[in-house]
Amino acid sequence: MNAAIPAHLLPKLDPRPVPAAMVEALKSRFGERCSSALAVRQQHGRDESVYDVPPPELVVFCESTDEVAAVVRLADQHAVPVIPYGAGSSLEGHLLAVQGGVSIDLSRMNRVVELQADDLTVTVQSGVTRMQLNNEIRHSGLFFPIDPGADASIGGMCATRASGTNAVRYGTMRENVLALTVVTATGDVIRTGTRAKKSSAGYDLTRLLVGSEGTLGVMTEITLKLYPQPEAVSAAICSFPDIAAAVRTTIQIIQMGVPIARCELLDANAVRAVNRHDKLTLREGPMLLMEFHGTPTGVKEQIVTVEQIAADNAGLAFEWAETPEERTRLWTARHHAYFAGLQMRPGCRTLTTDTCVPISRLADCLLDTVAEADASGIPYYIVGHVGDGNFHVAYLIDPNDPQEREAAERLNVQLVRRALSLDGTCTGEHGIGLHKMEFLVAEAGAGTVDVMRTLKRALDPKNIMNPGKIFAA
Amino acid sequence: MNAAIPAHLLPKLDPRPVPAAMVEALKSRFGERCSSALAVRQQHGRDESVYDVPPPELVVFCESTDEVAAVVRLADQHAVPVIPYGAGSSLEGHLLAVQGGVSIDLSRMNRVVELQADDLTVTVQSGVTRMQLNNEIRHSGLFFPIDPGADASIGGMCATRASGTNAVRYGTMRENVLALTVVTATGDVIRTGTRAKKSSAGYDLTRLLVGSEGTLGVMTEITLKLYPQPEAVSAAICSFPDIAAAVRTTIQIIQMGVPIARCELLDANAVRAVNRHDKLTLREGPMLLMEFHGTPTGVKEQIVTVEQIAADNAGLAFEWAETPEERTRLWTARHHAYFAGLQMRPGCRTLTTDTCVPISRLADCLLDTVAEADASGIPYYIVGHVGDGNFHVAYLIDPNDPQEREAAERLNVQLVRRALSLDGTCTGEHGIGLHKMEFLVAEAGAGTVDVMRTLKRALDPKNIMNPGKIFAA
Repeated sequence: MNAAIPAHLLPKLDPRPVPAAMVEALKSRFGERCSSALAVRQQHGRDESVYDVPPPELVVFCESTDEVAAVVRLADQHAVPVIPYGAGSSLEGHLLAVQGGVSIDLSRMNRVVELQADDLTVTVQSGVTRMQLNNEIRHSGLFFPIDPGADASIGGMCATRASGTNAVRYGTMRENVLALTVVTATGDVIRTGTRAKKSSAGYDLTRLLVGSEGTLGVMTEITLKLYPQPEAVSAAICSFPDIAAAVRTTIQIIQMGVPIARCELLDANAVRAVNRHDKLTLREGPMLLMEFHGTPTGVKEQIVTVEQIAADNAGLAFEWAETPEERTRLWTARHHAYFAGLQMRPGCRTLTTDTCVPISRLADCLLDTVAEADASGIPYYIVGHVGDGNFHVAYLIDPNDPQEREAAERLNVQLVRRALSLDGTCTGEHGIGLHKMEFLVAEAGAGTVDVMRTLKRALDPKNIMNPGKIFAA
Repeated sequence: MNAAIPAHLLPKLDPRPVPAAMVEALKSRFGERCSSALAVRQQHGRDESVYDVPPPELVVFCESTDEVAAVVRLADQHAVPVIPYGAGSSLEGHLLAVQGGVSIDLSRMNRVVELQADDLTVTVQSGVTRMQLNNEIRHSGLFFPIDPGADASIGGMCATRASGTNAVRYGTMRENVLALTVVTATGDVIRTGTRAKKSSAGYDLTRLLVGSEGTLGVMTEITLKLYPQPEAVSAAICSFPDIAAAVRTTIQIIQMGVPIARCELLDANAVRAVNRHDKLTLREGPMLLMEFHGTPTGVKEQIVTVEQIAADNAGLAFEWAETPEERTRLWTARHHAYFAGLQMRPGCRTLTTDTCVPISRLADCLLDTVAEADASGIPYYIVGHVGDGNFHVAYLIDPNDPQEREAAERLNVQLVRRALSLDGTCTGEHGIGLHKMEFLVAEAGAGTVDVMRTLKRALDPKNIMNPGKIFAA
């Protein structure tokens, strides 16, 4: 497929072979848990991005921090790349072996190490997924709110600084990771942070690692903040005559300081897709999907305020989902938007944008983008964590039509430029990966990216930790 | 005074003289704003820590980012230390010129650059103090919640990752800084972050700089999150028969998930000090000083819950401060605790501890500490941001009695060991500075501190940015 794609849209490949001595050492230590089978390699060599790249040479299934450290020490010795692999749900090519090497599969490190319910904290191995975590801690009356849609691993969510639907109230991975166990590029094991809620003890290595996309170390254990399950939860749908009205409603909700727990936009295309995929009968217009958490009276107060704002903006009547079952159905539909969208155009791949702007600029950013997308003729849908100023345009592109791919990339460039001019970011939650390196320079400036590169070189002088991501070389 | 203090309690001095050519260049560029007058140097060469150290050789009063960059470029050229100076309220020796050099006074960079009320953000120069900021933005209906007590500069608060009384609800500087303008060790100016509420664009340099104590760069402009002034605010005092009861009450409030805005402990000694200093008549026993923010009904709900918890723990009746004037009087008294404490023992200096532990461990940490402090015979008082698990024992020591100083340091060591054994931190909000370098190693481990040192060396190879703080050389 790549043959049809113009070279400037392809990632730079620079494979470094794994020396026989390292293969030997890994096979002897890990036995069948070190695999060179093509199917296993291929599974670890693709994600939800638009790229096709040769797979890693080897996959090692690790079961402990010590095992990860052993792999990294060998990689250090032989200057071979390692790529941490969690649930494979990256959208930006984070997992792709552009410089070859070894995929470290962490999915067997899926133990909830310790729930400290009295402190509202939990320590997990990095292969635990967010749904598994919430299932395992449900009895405690606590929950972990960060919800990027996919059932990602907690390690992967750390690596990309993920957020998603609940971030408008509970923050992102940036705000919710207290401490990390990390295997460094030399194979040493360090601990960053403690379980104290706050600390001024030296550099904030935890926050430096969160969002580092596997390029500075492999996170193997993660201590997270938890929250009491709210006494009352209420979810509502409100449909609007146009996107502008839905966006105005969102902006006013945030500016009023309503502590809304979720505030999601679906455009008419997204609603159509989930109707078809989940056999729903939602009105096929722009819609806000909202959730309110609090005490029963607190939730009622929030609802009164939001209903008034929506009515002032020509919102149609609220539809309520009061029972947990109805709410689950609604949010499941929202989370299916991605796969529902794919099915709108069989055989397509998606190119998904991820800009995030200050809330007052959201209308400026979104409405011009919709006009451009409509004019392009490429099928698309929009979903957005609009309470945070973050939305995704998913272009459904024909993988055999390089012109369509180019057109979608061009639209993304235009959107990113617009977001940057509005003091926003090229990526709210998906990360840089392979796809946004140039955007990072445009956003942060060459000097700032140089500082990042200096940090990378200092901590990973042999460039073995997921090389070729965030910045070239 | 230092003559009497044992050598192991003194900071290592390693002054690097400022070459004549650099003095010349600074005087010619800054004129009278470059001062070598002893009084000015001495004012910039001390803080609220226990140390006496020779002052910096020069003080330069900068008025713009460009001027800071010019000073740092000269410092780079001549390998001379620079020390950013805000309001001088550090407790850990951050400002002290242990390796000589130039103090960069930022207090004239005191402009609120832009209030973006619609986005709940503001950009300020780093010399703006927190009280000035709140005065200047009051008309917008917004406020900046972080309140470390002292009227610190926003730059200083960033440098130490400050928090204080409101952090239990609003977080610390870690959670409330969106973006920074930074002068790097080479005198280059970079921008980290944007005004977007969240981002996954590369390494989180903002969070790496916040808490870096001036050792990685000089922050000159800072973009902060703001919050709508709550509709309703209510403050209350509750006195307890003993500290254990006050601590149990705190733990239960937090575990119930009450969104309390302030939850402060004063021990009987602290109450006695503020009574005397502020001419109040508070009951001279352990006390919680609390504040509730929200809608009128939300605040009422919080109060009902907290009153019940306090009553279950033998709390005496709540006293209310409903009007803004009463509240101000109360919080002013709390903020005077430090100076009120100093006056309890004329001529004393304070050695202040700053441990922070997970909330369930707070009783374990605090009660044993009180027993030790009582047994020591050294006058002391305790104030604490106990909702976060953070408290300060302030030992009032006779500067002419080295044995007392040693005894207080020993008590601090015991407290830090206890906090670390409870998975806490040696410093919740004051920073490492000169005073806690050994504690940092004990807390984070030598390997983790090595990673920090690697970052420092990479970003500041000539070791000119506030050298000798956080870690030796």
